Amino acid sequence: MPYHILNRESVLEYVRGHPLFDTVFYPGAALESQEISDGNLNLVFRVYERGGERSVLVKQALPYLRVAGEGWPLSKARAGFEARALEQHHLAAPGRVPQPKWFDEEMAVNVMEDLRRHQVMRAPMVARVQFPGLGRTVGEFLAATLFATSDFALLSAEKKRLGTQFVNLELCELSEALIFTEPFYSRPSRNRYSSALEAEVQSLWADAEVLAQVAYLKLRFMTDTQALLHGDLHTGSLMATLPDAQGQCDIRIIDPEFAFFGPMGFDVGLFMANLLLNAVAQQGHAPNLEQRQTYRRYLLEQLALCWRSFESGFLMRFETASNPSWLEPGFQKSFLCSVLQDSVGYAGCEMIRRTIGFAHVLDLDSIPDELERVKAEREVLELGRALIGSHRKIESIDVLERIVVEHLQLEVLL
Amino acid sequence: MPYHILNRESVLEYVRGHPLFDTVFYPGAALESQEISDGNLNLVFRVYERGGERSVLVKQALPYLRVAGEGWPLSKARAGFEARALEQHHLAAPGRVPQPKWFDEEMAVNVMEDLRRHQVMRAPMVARVQFPGLGRTVGEFLAATLFATSDFALLSAEKKRLGTQFVNLELCELSEALIFTEPFYSRPSRNRYSSALEAEVQSLWADAEVLAQVAYLKLRFMTDTQALLHGDLHTGSLMATLPDAQGQCDIRIIDPEFAFFGPMGFDVGLFMANLLLNAVAQQGHAPNLEQRQTYRRYLLEQLALCWRSFESGFLMRFETASNPSWLEPGFQKSFLCSVLQDSVGYAGCEMIRRTIGFAHVLDLDSIPDELERVKAEREVLELGRALIGSHRKIESIDVLERIVVEHLQLEVLL
Repeated sequence: MPYHILNRESVLEYVRGHPLFDTVFYPGAALESQEISDGNLNLVFRVYERGGERSVLVKQALPYLRVAGEGWPLSKARAGFEARALEQHHLAAPGRVPQPKWFDEEMAVNVMEDLRRHQVMRAPMVARVQFPGLGRTVGEFLAATLFATSDFALLSAEKKRLGTQFVNLELCELSEALIFTEPFYSRPSRNRYSSALEAEVQSLWADAEVLAQVAYLKLRFMTDTQALLHGDLHTGSLMATLPDAQGQCDIRIIDPEFAFFGPMGFDVGLFMANLLLNAVAQQGHAPNLEQRQTYRRYLLEQLALCWRSFESGFLMRFETASNPSWLEPGFQKSFLCSVLQDSVGYAGCEMIRRTIGFAHVLDLDSIPDELERVKAEREVLELGRALIGSHRKIESIDVLERIVVEHLQLEVLL
Repeated sequence: MPYHILNRESVLEYVRGHPLFDTVFYPGAALESQEISDGNLNLVFRVYERGGERSVLVKQALPYLRVAGEGWPLSKARAGFEARALEQHHLAAPGRVPQPKWFDEEMAVNVMEDLRRHQVMRAPMVARVQFPGLGRTVGEFLAATLFATSDFALLSAEKKRLGTQFVNLELCELSEALIFTEPFYSRPSRNRYSSALEAEVQSLWADAEVLAQVAYLKLRFMTDTQALLHGDLHTGSLMATLPDAQGQCDIRIIDPEFAFFGPMGFDVGLFMANLLLNAVAQQGHAPNLEQRQTYRRYLLEQLALCWRSFESGFLMRFETASNPSWLEPGFQKSFLCSVLQDSVGYAGCEMIRRTIGFAHVLDLDSIPDELERVKAEREVLELGRALIGSHRKIESIDVLERIVVEHLQLEVLL
């Protein structure tokens, strides 16, 4: 079927007409649809049986950025990157991503499991909902997917062949510009920040040492093909059910259209940064100090658990490597230390770009009081700079924890 | 024309029948040929006008390793990698490579300028011929080609697209195994070394710290796509005319079929290692101490000049970068320092693998006295280990020079 943009009506015809229709719905089922587009990029529909249990999610890439309109063209090839990444994630971490149903290249459509009981985590986290197992689940997901797509698990030629499926030119370029270049220079830029931050922004742009570190992290983002990354692992790419009576919730990792072969620390760091952004932003959301610090302690715990689960999951998998080089204990140790350092550096970049760059986060933007918002943004910038400046010296997760405890003044309550 | 292996007769028909024939020879010229295969991999013919000036080199990839025979299959796709790399080198460093005439994918043939006045440098260097400008020429070639194919010169998408032309699966795998894995482990291996070296080899294989460093260098070789490398830059990939009356010689860089996107220090380090291999080996070739030390001083000078020319050529080109990140002085400095450190580490690996691995070098193999040869091999192993062990601490070329001076006891004569 030649490409055409779907709407609530035509998505029903599309699903009905697809050869795989009866793998997901009862034959002749009456379908209804609902548009639930939410992220910045794509059209998303829920298609479900009237009165029935079954439903699927239909996600279509538009030839432009959805939130920006036709003036910001963007190739719909991203649907293919998402499909291929989803397939790899589903293989390496089954049950952690929406189950893929089909990919339609011509229509730039991915059809997948509809996570009806799940919600995107960012907004509830702003409201201080605690999702049990968050850090551990994300850490284990990262260990599974990053190891499985690295040279540690794949033969050299397999890995390079897989790499040819993920030459994600356009979205990599977008990340390079929006994360690593524009927030650190006055031009060319699509930066957006409150004029009250001008002094902090100018001070950042004059910090030669931080700019040198950012350039290095950017170069590694562009050249270091350690593993297939999710590429956009913020809390808006996570969905979860609310905790059940036993305090359990089901967490899924979605939207891997930015997937590319890059440095592992970029995925880890983005997740860390989004926890820290939330933690700082709580000063504008939490009605009192105790609530604020309680949630911050929860976040810091998830951050550390994410790293520790990633690290132990990775070390366990290292023992399965068939090449003797990867079994060297000294190598394993220094490799994981370098991933931690990268993570901290990338976390710092993400925090800064989400504050003064083009794409902001709800955590900060939704702080109702403007003075409080600016104050929180200032602290995010400060912590981000500190992380970039010190990332090459961070030898263990404890050191990172201490830096965060100090910045958020968590000592007394820890 | 379907693929068939050329011989002295059929190469003439092949050249005569090619549409580009009259761009290289006079119409109707009577041609003769000569087989001059020399490296490990390919068939090479010189085709020339009888009694005339004009000639070309015809290089054909065989579907197996020439020196090993049909039992070691090797895809003839390598002719394409050579053609595309030669084109890039010719663009970035015109006059430094044989001028390409045509590439015939089906026949796996590259036709190029015939360097009749040039000879491969390894053998004359074993005989202590000094080629003026060697270090500077190689350093400038590396600055030109590595910069031009990096993210510093190309737009992100251009670079990634160029990368898709150099997914050199088979030859990368060969380098990974023969340089980074086999020489450091007892199995699986095609290692070849004198039993007199058994104690040194066992000691190397038990050195956990060196093995961890080698694993790291290997991972970076496999994942860090900084620039299009030559990939096999030893002194057998260099040709030169003998010095003329003015002491000038013309130096060319040949045989880039191992080209791939990798860490810049690998090219620099291979060249350094082959100078050092020669320097150590001179104890088995030079009839007296003065001749030996004089040539060693020449080699060390070329090594340092190579680095200094590379560094200054690179710094000069950095100023042309259009992206502000690459203009940060702190970034430029730390990037070049990391390339130097990589170079030293890769040099160490190359020295070791050329001594105990599968592919040896004439410099050591041709030492007539067996005791002298083993002694030289022992010293190569020792220096190689020292370079691997210390490479992350080498902050400037002076430090490397001092290490070499000490190992070769050049103090008194320097």
